[in-house]
Amino acid sequence: MGLCVKILFVNGPNLNRLGKREPQIYGATSLEEVENRCRALCTSLNMELIAFQSNHEGALIDFIQRYQDEALAMLINPAGYGHTSVALRDAVIGSGLYCVEVHISNIAKRESFRHKTLLGDVVQGSIVGLGVYGYELGILAIHRHLMGGGP
Amino acid sequence: MGLCVKILFVNGPNLNRLGKREPQIYGATSLEEVENRCRALCTSLNMELIAFQSNHEGALIDFIQRYQDEALAMLINPAGYGHTSVALRDAVIGSGLYCVEVHISNIAKRESFRHKTLLGDVVQGSIVGLGVYGYELGILAIHRHLMGGGP
Amino acid sequence: MGLCVKILFVNGPNLNRLGKREPQIYGATSLEEVENRCRALCTSLNMELIAFQSNHEGALIDFIQRYQDEALAMLINPAGYGHTSVALRDAVIGSGLYCVEVHISNIAKRESFRHKTLLGDVVQGSIVGLGVYGYELGILAIHRHLMGGGP
Amino acid sequence: MGLCVKILFVNGPNLNRLGKREPQIYGATSLEEVENRCRALCTSLNMELIAFQSNHEGALIDFIQRYQDEALAMLINPAGYGHTSVALRDAVIGSGLYCVEVHISNIAKRESFRHKTLLGDVVQGSIVGLGVYGYELGILAIHRHLMGGGP
Amino acid sequence: MGLCVKILFVNGPNLNRLGKREPQIYGATSLEEVENRCRALCTSLNMELIAFQSNHEGALIDFIQRYQDEALAMLINPAGYGHTSVALRDAVIGSGLYCVEVHISNIAKRESFRHKTLLGDVVQGSIVGLGVYGYELGILAIHRHLMGGGP
Amino acid sequence: MGLCVKILFVNGPNLNRLGKREPQIYGATSLEEVENRCRALCTSLNMELIAFQSNHEGALIDFIQRYQDEALAMLINPAGYGHTSVALRDAVIGSGLYCVEVHISNIAKRESFRHKTLLGDVVQGSIVGLGVYGYELGILAIHRHLMGGGP
Amino acid sequence: MGLCVKILFVNGPNLNRLGKREPQIYGATSLEEVENRCRALCTSLNMELIAFQSNHEGALIDFIQRYQDEALAMLINPAGYGHTSVALRDAVIGSGLYCVEVHISNIAKRESFRHKTLLGDVVQGSIVGLGVYGYELGILAIHRHLMGGGP
Amino acid sequence: MGLCVKILFVNGPNLNRLGKREPQIYGATSLEEVENRCRALCTSLNMELIAFQSNHEGALIDFIQRYQDEALAMLINPAGYGHTSVALRDAVIGSGLYCVEVHISNIAKRESFRHKTLLGDVVQGSIVGLGVYGYELGILAIHRHLMGGGP
Amino acid sequence: MGLCVKILFVNGPNLNRLGKREPQIYGATSLEEVENRCRALCTSLNMELIAFQSNHEGALIDFIQRYQDEALAMLINPAGYGHTSVALRDAVIGSGLYCVEVHISNIAKRESFRHKTLLGDVVQGSIVGLGVYGYELGILAIHRHLMGGGP
Amino acid sequence: MGLCVKILFVNGPNLNRLGKREPQIYGATSLEEVENRCRALCTSLNMELIAFQSNHEGALIDFIQRYQDEALAMLINPAGYGHTSVALRDAVIGSGLYCVEVHISNIAKRESFRHKTLLGDVVQGSIVGLGVYGYELGILAIHRHLMGGGP
Amino acid sequence: MGLCVKILFVNGPNLNRLGKREPQIYGATSLEEVENRCRALCTSLNMELIAFQSNHEGALIDFIQRYQDEALAMLINPAGYGHTSVALRDAVIGSGLYCVEVHISNIAKRESFRHKTLLGDVVQGSIVGLGVYGYELGILAIHRHLMGGGP
Amino acid sequence: MGLCVKILFVNGPNLNRLGKREPQIYGATSLEEVENRCRALCTSLNMELIAFQSNHEGALIDFIQRYQDEALAMLINPAGYGHTSVALRDAVIGSGLYCVEVHISNIAKRESFRHKTLLGDVVQGSIVGLGVYGYELGILAIHRHLMGGGP
Repeated sequence: MGLCVKILFVNGPNLNRLGKREPQIYGATSLEEVENRCRALCTSLNMELIAFQSNHEGALIDFIQRYQDEALAMLINPAGYGHTSVALRDAVIGSGLYCVEVHISNIAKRESFRHKTLLGDVVQGSIVGLGVYGYELGILAIHRHLMGGGP
Repeated sequence: MGLCVKILFVNGPNLNRLGKREPQIYGATSLEEVENRCRALCTSLNMELIAFQSNHEGALIDFIQRYQDEALAMLINPAGYGHTSVALRDAVIGSGLYCVEVHISNIAKRESFRHKTLLGDVVQGSIVGLGVYGYELGILAIHRHLMGGGP
Repeated sequence: MGLCVKILFVNGPNLNRLGKREPQIYGATSLEEVENRCRALCTSLNMELIAFQSNHEGALIDFIQRYQDEALAMLINPAGYGHTSVALRDAVIGSGLYCVEVHISNIAKRESFRHKTLLGDVVQGSIVGLGVYGYELGILAIHRHLMGGGP
Repeated sequence: MGLCVKILFVNGPNLNRLGKREPQIYGATSLEEVENRCRALCTSLNMELIAFQSNHEGALIDFIQRYQDEALAMLINPAGYGHTSVALRDAVIGSGLYCVEVHISNIAKRESFRHKTLLGDVVQGSIVGLGVYGYELGILAIHRHLMGGGP
Repeated sequence: MGLCVKILFVNGPNLNRLGKREPQIYGATSLEEVENRCRALCTSLNMELIAFQSNHEGALIDFIQRYQDEALAMLINPAGYGHTSVALRDAVIGSGLYCVEVHISNIAKRESFRHKTLLGDVVQGSIVGLGVYGYELGILAIHRHLMGGGP
Repeated sequence: MGLCVKILFVNGPNLNRLGKREPQIYGATSLEEVENRCRALCTSLNMELIAFQSNHEGALIDFIQRYQDEALAMLINPAGYGHTSVALRDAVIGSGLYCVEVHISNIAKRESFRHKTLLGDVVQGSIVGLGVYGYELGILAIHRHLMGGGP
Repeated sequence: MGLCVKILFVNGPNLNRLGKREPQIYGATSLEEVENRCRALCTSLNMELIAFQSNHEGALIDFIQRYQDEALAMLINPAGYGHTSVALRDAVIGSGLYCVEVHISNIAKRESFRHKTLLGDVVQGSIVGLGVYGYELGILAIHRHLMGGGP
Repeated sequence: MGLCVKILFVNGPNLNRLGKREPQIYGATSLEEVENRCRALCTSLNMELIAFQSNHEGALIDFIQRYQDEALAMLINPAGYGHTSVALRDAVIGSGLYCVEVHISNIAKRESFRHKTLLGDVVQGSIVGLGVYGYELGILAIHRHLMGGGP
Repeated sequence: MGLCVKILFVNGPNLNRLGKREPQIYGATSLEEVENRCRALCTSLNMELIAFQSNHEGALIDFIQRYQDEALAMLINPAGYGHTSVALRDAVIGSGLYCVEVHISNIAKRESFRHKTLLGDVVQGSIVGLGVYGYELGILAIHRHLMGGGP
Repeated sequence: MGLCVKILFVNGPNLNRLGKREPQIYGATSLEEVENRCRALCTSLNMELIAFQSNHEGALIDFIQRYQDEALAMLINPAGYGHTSVALRDAVIGSGLYCVEVHISNIAKRESFRHKTLLGDVVQGSIVGLGVYGYELGILAIHRHLMGGGP
Repeated sequence: MGLCVKILFVNGPNLNRLGKREPQIYGATSLEEVENRCRALCTSLNMELIAFQSNHEGALIDFIQRYQDEALAMLINPAGYGHTSVALRDAVIGSGLYCVEVHISNIAKRESFRHKTLLGDVVQGSIVGLGVYGYELGILAIHRHLMGGGP
Repeated sequence: MGLCVKILFVNGPNLNRLGKREPQIYGATSLEEVENRCRALCTSLNMELIAFQSNHEGALIDFIQRYQDEALAMLINPAGYGHTSVALRDAVIGSGLYCVEVHISNIAKRESFRHKTLLGDVVQGSIVGLGVYGYELGILAIHRHLMGGGP
């Protein structure tokens, strides 16, 4: 198990309240539960999650910088910082990691300032609007990529 | 097998040339191969694909109208029509189907007129930039939804 | 009756599903029923309808080109193609027909890309948001015009 | 006749000069003549017109407020105030009346600031570019609605 | 007094320097003095302030999340984060609190990027340009609301 | 009492229907009742209201010009004219009065053309979205200013 | 003298306060004095002024409609209505008069919404920023035109 | 002759009516005549035309896909689809052919939505506004290129 | 006469062809004739013209720099450079001269890029659309100013 | 030969360095060589070139003005001035010549400010992206036009 | 040396990874090395650096507030926060320090959202695209200013 | 000294009046003095200046073309042409020189059309707002680059 691939699992502001906050939009599953499901999926694929959530833009950047050399990929839900943070974008670029962006709700259905993110064109791809299951799909995509599955 | 759920699998213009057309962007897998992979995945999940590709906007609409009452969900890669077709958008709305949109390449990295689609805010969600594997992820998302997995 | 004036009656994509598609927006009357009403009204005014519906942009253009020399006027609900088709606009201009545009729903209340149409400034006038009764009003307007009622 | 339905018939600035002002655009019929035609049509449908024209934005609002409880519907040609008056829009909303907007000329063919009106998305529908006959069509639409003809 | 209603009193970046920073714009009263006045007013209305100021976006969000279940309302001057923070907006929405936004200076007179805030359409209302007295007015508004004074 | 300070209390179009018009937005209190409350508050503060409401842009300007030399301050709810009237803006500037703008509803939550007003950058400040209580807060702000309370 | 040419001399809102209102922008001359100077100049050129000022948009339109058949030209300072009134624009077009627009201050130096007027492209020409002397220049231009001096 | 180079000669919607449709814009030559002239020119240059016209976007794409491996270059007048079809653009890119775009009229003189085309930056170059002679110039350009004449 | 005030009289590109170039727009008077008229007017007012025309942006700037210390005012028709030259704008600012801008045609009626000029907000005022007589009006305005006539 | 038609051949800034400047964009042929080819082609068609290149906007205008009465047509590559010079546009209009615009590179593929030119809608047509051969095509187009070949 | 002038040396997010992060853009020198060079330069000019780097917007503001009274000037590379932080802008304004902004890469060559910064118009000046040597140039500029060298 | 590196030192329109023109913006130092300082600095670094100033866009381009092969770098203050000249941009690109842009004043604090320049993304870097000392900093940057100091 010590040799398994590490994946950063980064969640931005207010996601610590997942399940409690606006459940009609984000669903009733807590972030802890999401992490557990993803960790289990990773284990079955011989990968390991390094998970982090923060409401602080700077803390998210610190985290990425600290672990980027240990990991091979990143799954990130930038939440509100996805729409405003050039600094986080620069950290993602700087990390050099294969990166997949996840949004639980369909941001194209919401306020116009949510329609695009500053990460959108620097990550490999994104999964949007498919609920918390999107995180698991993201892990599958990363796994496929690491197995040599193409772009 | 006769009782399995049907899913529309719709591909827009130029995707019949997948694998041959701009492989540095779209990869080397043919549409036939993609369909085979998806069909196999569906079989394993007790679902059935009804696949269609056309370069004709009207033919795509005709297809959706014809099969929308038989199927429970749709996986669609609208290709170029995603950026220009209000008529296709209306057909998707009118179908009442649970719908997931797939784009093989990361449209946020390309010309600005590709950054958003006219389907984006009427489908359930979208999977972008994860190559042809995105189709398989879309089928998983549909399956999860049909199993009662939430939004 | 063989000498009566001919009017093109053109309906664009998804209108074949009128009455079934989003009835809270478009009402419960089918296109067939609308055609019947309009045909009856025309008969009473000594005019004849040549009706056509298609989901294919090109087929709509083919139809207009084919019948434009036989007819004196056109009633058109371009549906989704009204917002995107320069080709249809060119066909309408090229036909030289007196033309009235109809929209069943009030497009000014809907998504911003529906607020104006590419036909708006090349037709004589338009009737918007008055339900399927708008088709009958359009026939009255054409009749008044052909009777010499002015612009 | 005392029990017939009342309809407000509201005309905005410069329409008192109809028939004399820019006849190549607005035709040669005077407003008085238009009112006579509409009154006759209403009589035949057992409805009654309460007509008003003013060049004063405030006077138009005063009129609507004063008669809105007596009437069931309103036919309005806001002329220039259609493009500039939020106050008139608020009066129309506040009246709670079924409302149809009429424009004699095709505003989509004119200066770009005339292409949309501030009433467009708060009225039921609109009739544009069909000359003064559009008023009569509007009365028919109101009548159909009051008879239960649907949206 | 232990049973009195709690109100969050949140001040964003640079407001710790109130009274010293650009006094021609913000006046000469310190934030401490403003808090004292507001606390006194609250006491007289049987309400209690929980005050917090930070230059850190994440710390403001942490604070709101931590106290949102204890309090019934929030008075917030987001300062610079009002114009840039989607994350703070999400925290305000997520808190479910009755919220009033205060700006000491009249932001409509300043740089165009200050003219609107990302909180403006998610708070109940706002008080702008009335100096530090605006905080006291905000407390009165909250009190009136909690007393059942309407919207 | 004859020596008390005079304040103009100006209300724009459709506010004469306050309490009856769209009560879900504007509440159920009539303008007369609002005036009574404000007059009572003023009396307690040794100030006097000169109140005026009109649906006529010009009448509002006439009123301001007529009383501006007698009064020291103005409380104004321009309603629809706030979004369209440069002339009213010029009258407010020309009056030289200390001026506070009030909006009953939160205009930032409504149509985009209501998000800013033409008075916003020429008044001292504004109170938005706090219901008719906003008028009383405005009077308090004026009183504080006249007492020497700073900006 | 009874046979002299008549010229409309129209001044919009707040210009009745000329000389008192913002003299650093508009100068210290009253409107009465301006009218006297212009009347004298007209007399010397065998022309007659019909002068009118109002704060009411509708009253300005009424005035133009009433006198347009008696006069040969119009000198107009629309003030604030120049930037917002389509109705006034329509009245100017409808009048068929040779028309010169005057602005006392240089509107290109002021707020961006003052940079262009809705009259600008329907009058013959305009004189901007040359103080109240601009009115006299406008009369000279009208005189030159009526003498056959070209465009 | 069997060894001569093949060139696709593609014409979009409404061009089948060339010579009859708006001759003041497009001239009086029919498409058949244009094809004959171009075919003759090609013969003289040892090249062969494969000509196709359709009003159907999808049919144009099908045609390009079908013949792109046989031909070395394409001359295309996309007509209305040039302004709206991303799908056609993708087909042109996908064909890998040396491509020249022709417009009979000067699109820069017409409606603003005609000023640029979606093909403009993916073709080699374009010839605009030089009438049907532009097709012959396009053939010369293709010939020069195939002869090694540089970009 | 040697003591009379000097005025720069500057004309930009293509104005050397005045009278010959597009006479339906600019009239039939030559620039020489305009200069003669202006010179005569100046003589009668004890002022002297220093006239210059060039098609070269740099030459116009050189001229202004060379004579700005001798003259008290400038009358300038920048023609095409008015819409494109920041350098000329800087020269006008740098000259410190009282400056009036003249346009022969009404630029508000022409292409949108002509609607405003880069000089508009740095000159004292402008005279637009009044033909070549506008130059004479400009000289009168300068004379009035130099006589102490106000802004 | 003395009776042959004259054509202006105008090249704008930096084109004197053709062949040396950015050859990957503009090719390796010098302007002298291009002129020689065009002159030869003209000779064979009994036309004569009057060629001019300058880096000076004013000099290009001077040249056009000087020779416009001798020539019947103009071939112009305005280079950088095509995107910025209203003065050059005015000179082209003023010349009254049949004019064809040439761009060596495909400006639609370059920076967005190069996508359109200020000459585009005042010339007859344009040839873009076909290398220096575009000049020869332009001469053919002019010749065809002068022979009576249509629009 | 204890009496030397203090200068704040502030570096924003991701600059702690200078030399390692995207060296093709930012070069291979580490931030520590840059600080050493600048400290040495300062020493030679009798100035002292107080250096700080953080990925936290709030921490950068805290730092500026804490040291602004000790220092006379600030050299700041805001990195990503330069494009998004109004709060940092407010801190810079509030500090009252002479401030120079540095960007290592040429931000005008990068994504359009990097072309301008929110600090650009509140600092004294900026040095862009000259690599890490830009920091040393910034120190020279500050030194020149403190020596009385002008703006 | 004959072997020293040559640097072009280019100044655009109105800079010949440096020191006299708007000294509150540009300072009181003349261009001659600036050149002297820069020449002295160059001498100390074994470099040689070739200086040129002109108000003529074309002359600046001629100068660059003439000397670009002799020099290794260019220091340029394009003044007004920086905001309008594509031709100058093309000359800078075509020169192939290492180029630094200088602006004496902080253009980000001035009119919005000065905020960016057409040279900004084709030069190596820029120095803005640091007064005439910016020229000396530019020379240092060039020297560092030529010494091999990196980007």
